[in-house]
Amino acid sequence: MPNATLGSIEITPLPTFPDPRGTLTVAEIAKLVPFTVQRLFYVQGVPEGITRGSHGHYRCRQFLICQTGIISVEITDGIASKTFSLHANQAILIEPGLYATETYTTPDAALLVLCDRPFEAEDYIKSIEELVRFRAAQAST
Amino acid sequence: MPNATLGSIEITPLPTFPDPRGTLTVAEIAKLVPFTVQRLFYVQGVPEGITRGSHGHYRCRQFLICQTGIISVEITDGIASKTFSLHANQAILIEPGLYATETYTTPDAALLVLCDRPFEAEDYIKSIEELVRFRAAQAST
Repeated sequence: MPNATLGSIEITPLPTFPDPRGTLTVAEIAKLVPFTVQRLFYVQGVPEGITRGSHGHYRCRQFLICQTGIISVEITDGIASKTFSLHANQAILIEPGLYATETYTTPDAALLVLCDRPFEAEDYIKSIEELVRFRAAQAST
Repeated sequence: MPNATLGSIEITPLPTFPDPRGTLTVAEIAKLVPFTVQRLFYVQGVPEGITRGSHGHYRCRQFLICQTGIISVEITDGIASKTFSLHANQAILIEPGLYATETYTTPDAALLVLCDRPFEAEDYIKSIEELVRFRAAQAST
């Protein structure tokens, strides 16, 4: 299987409809997300400037949506890295074989993540060394 | 097709993991949600006490998650009604053929809705009269 590349990652803005009664944001999953959602999780109430994540996945694909605030998402392939400043109602897809760290830049930042797999403890890539080994193995198959 | 009943609706609490770096809430969609998610939308920034929704669906199934705050969800079948006070990280499934109105009880209330269909303007049941007609037609088939 070819390794996921940093170059193909791009920010997708989600259609947002603000009015005096609040703001509604839509994600047409069937069009935007290239997998069936098996699990979701959301993270909120994170103190400003705190970093979470710092792992990759061997198999799990994830679609990240910044619901409010700003979240800085740093993604590395073990050699280069790229940082995306995800503002409210913007999304990115992160493929397996990449390593991501999220910094909650504003105190109201909230992240929603859609996944194509249930929770599997053994699917986590916990270090850059582990990532590099995995990508080398992938490249040689 | 039998009409959806109010009696079968129940609140599902979602596993929540708070720590000093924020709160993570998980929904294992494949287990909890009886459909493939085709679309999602979320509503936030709603002034306290404001009411939204006030419609039903002919076909669309919806899984409502209260992400923060408290949302009061009043559901009617055209004859009786039932009100659910949905607190943060609680969810309910609303089947088609019911009519729901959401009151954003607290200023931080945020609602996430998962749907089994794309947006279809013609799928909205816009009045209780329309709901009653639809349920009568369903009951007679």
